[in-house]
Amino acid sequence: MPNRNQPIPAPVVRRLSLYLRRLDYLANQGVEKVSSRSLAESLSLTDAQVRKDLGYFGQFGRAGVGYLVGPLVEELKRILGTDKVWPVVLVGAGDLGRALLRYKGFRRRGFEVVAAFDVAAAVVGRNIGGVPVLHIRELPKLAARHGVKLAILAVPTEAAQVAAEQLHAAGIRGILNFAPTAMPSPADTVVRPVDLASELEQLSFRVGQK
Amino acid sequence: MPNRNQPIPAPVVRRLSLYLRRLDYLANQGVEKVSSRSLAESLSLTDAQVRKDLGYFGQFGRAGVGYLVGPLVEELKRILGTDKVWPVVLVGAGDLGRALLRYKGFRRRGFEVVAAFDVAAAVVGRNIGGVPVLHIRELPKLAARHGVKLAILAVPTEAAQVAAEQLHAAGIRGILNFAPTAMPSPADTVVRPVDLASELEQLSFRVGQK
Repeated sequence: MPNRNQPIPAPVVRRLSLYLRRLDYLANQGVEKVSSRSLAESLSLTDAQVRKDLGYFGQFGRAGVGYLVGPLVEELKRILGTDKVWPVVLVGAGDLGRALLRYKGFRRRGFEVVAAFDVAAAVVGRNIGGVPVLHIRELPKLAARHGVKLAILAVPTEAAQVAAEQLHAAGIRGILNFAPTAMPSPADTVVRPVDLASELEQLSFRVGQK
Repeated sequence: MPNRNQPIPAPVVRRLSLYLRRLDYLANQGVEKVSSRSLAESLSLTDAQVRKDLGYFGQFGRAGVGYLVGPLVEELKRILGTDKVWPVVLVGAGDLGRALLRYKGFRRRGFEVVAAFDVAAAVVGRNIGGVPVLHIRELPKLAARHGVKLAILAVPTEAAQVAAEQLHAAGIRGILNFAPTAMPSPADTVVRPVDLASELEQLSFRVGQK
């Protein structure tokens, strides 16, 4: 069994999200128990991998019984921190930012976008997907009021660094970065880059090689 | 120098996208030359890494001169296959699918969503973000007409497997899978999963641990 005091490797945490999503789906289907093998197969993993990953966090399954879906969902949410709802701000209500504001999938997984921020007069004051767009100068006050720790950054490259500094000053410690640039991040902040077009490029590379 | 006949590791291909995005930005800023060190620093990589990655594909830089931005952009596009525009179809014009249809960032990187497909009468026949939404039965004809090889899949879990089979039958060989499920894929098809909420979960896990 892995040492529970060591840091959890990033790939394990990624797979926790996979397990949670699958188990949540099974729970909604009314499934109450699942074996590590069945869970593994539905995710194209091995059952040894599933057992080892969950072993980082305790003893969940029982031999011959498998996992109880409902309790494991609750436990995974607790581990990932989504047993409560995280307030999230979005910075940059341009083309991509507006698309993300209209996406409802974050809420279902425990993340509520409470406000968006921009500087453009054309968009400040609007309401997009049920989320108010405010001027960036309102960020510190709103972030403090809601205790916001997470942000989605969807500004152009040239605005990313300044926006990241504003987010840090406002107490944000985790940034999902859709801005097309790498950012040096303070030691107390986690930045995860996302680039949807890059995902398609990985496909065009592989498909083009055939 | 790496053996140019061996398969390119996936992390190298991912970084090619990073290089391309950064170089494209520099080109738009009017920058004509860039050193491997400067390119590496802007992406939080080492210059040895940059030189090694690009070395898979040939000799691009010159000692003391660095890389010529314009020609390297063209070369990276050629390698990734985006020196031409790829027609792409989107299947599943629900909440997330519609958000993706409104996003313009794919086109700038060489991917044009030529049509979306769904089965719901409420959405078939509409035009979202300039893209017509057609009934899924139109997929084979349209895919053949445009020579479509790539698809974005944004359907619910229970519809994913059938949709993937329809895509395969229509000649699609690369799928960007936003559906919340893993899919067994035929050997001649590449599937890349994307889960935006999972990205936030990785952040909430890390920020919650502090």
